[in-house]
Amino acid sequence: IGSHLAEADSQTEWTDVQKKIIPWKNSTPSLDLETAFQDRAAKLGKSNSRLIVVASLIDKSTNLGGLCRTSEIFGASALVVGSLHYIQDKQFQHLSVSAEQWLPLVEVKPSQLVDYLQQKKTEGYTIIGVEQTAKSFDLTEYCFPEKSLLLLGNEHEGIPANLIHHLDVCVEIPQQGIIRSLNVHVSGALLIWEYTRQHVIKQKQQ
Amino acid sequence: IGSHLAEADSQTEWTDVQKKIIPWKNSTPSLDLETAFQDRAAKLGKSNSRLIVVASLIDKSTNLGGLCRTSEIFGASALVVGSLHYIQDKQFQHLSVSAEQWLPLVEVKPSQLVDYLQQKKTEGYTIIGVEQTAKSFDLTEYCFPEKSLLLLGNEHEGIPANLIHHLDVCVEIPQQGIIRSLNVHVSGALLIWEYTRQHVIKQKQQ
Repeated sequence: IGSHLAEADSQTEWTDVQKKIIPWKNSTPSLDLETAFQDRAAKLGKSNSRLIVVASLIDKSTNLGGLCRTSEIFGASALVVGSLHYIQDKQFQHLSVSAEQWLPLVEVKPSQLVDYLQQKKTEGYTIIGVEQTAKSFDLTEYCFPEKSLLLLGNEHEGIPANLIHHLDVCVEIPQQGIIRSLNVHVSGALLIWEYTRQHVIKQKQQ
Repeated sequence: IGSHLAEADSQTEWTDVQKKIIPWKNSTPSLDLETAFQDRAAKLGKSNSRLIVVASLIDKSTNLGGLCRTSEIFGASALVVGSLHYIQDKQFQHLSVSAEQWLPLVEVKPSQLVDYLQQKKTEGYTIIGVEQTAKSFDLTEYCFPEKSLLLLGNEHEGIPANLIHHLDVCVEIPQQGIIRSLNVHVSGALLIWEYTRQHVIKQKQQ
């Protein structure tokens, strides 16, 4: 209850982007997402952390359920999924261990992602793709901005080329083994952890 | 083939410990594990990284399969499991994506763990429990030794009290959310990553 929150208000800040897309579906449209973020940050005793995890390209309910659990535990502001129907999935629920009751979940369909990312840029978020490209930063060298949005790729296809152009930066996880790539939940977890670790260290230095 | 390797030779270094336990089960007893580590390190172009991931307390084949994949990708030396029978499990295989063909797997039953940890201490490994205790180090502050052995807890009971006494150190992952704890595969992945990250940074500084 009160967990899957709306972005209704933030849409009024839009200009031309506003006209061409369907608003994200949310279960409690009376609250805007920024209010939900502040509410959650206050509950967790955090004032300035803003991490949005975008999992709209992920297909498997097990990966989404796991990401929901991990995102909640590290105090992410919201998890964005391709459909809120995943919440009803038994495998999602088994792996999320009720995290969806505490973490704001937002529905953004893959077809809406370009506009969603543009909107978040105007709100000051850095759009970070978790993907290996020729220009990717190594995760051991990347310094996360306070307002970070992580875009995770699909289990098979990663992040499609048309979305790569809309990212501010790509970050890749240096891998040393023989088999090819990490599970997407694990990749996401490592970036969420790295964001958290850097944030914890900054707070201690203040 | 050539992946599930033996520790037969290293047992000859034992004194009284040797007498009371059953040797670990391995599929190719002609090779000792240190040789297997060096062989694997050479293949991966790494000379001095020694990370053993001990998952003998873990029950779920999905968590073990996932850990196998993650451990292989980050170049761990070996994964220790409670039974090599897990390798035949369909869910293990589904999640390990064949990583068990490249990563040495060793069988150490939970009842053999005390002796196994003692042996590894004599080989110079620091025994690190992934567990929340009154004396745990925060993962953001812990510096991993070159020869690190990670002991992961059971999904429900964590690390039992009788094993806690045999650890050199406990490390916990600082958590900020409302739900209680991370999945054991994710916890393991974050420590494996932290070990790797610190190791990569040290190598760059040399």
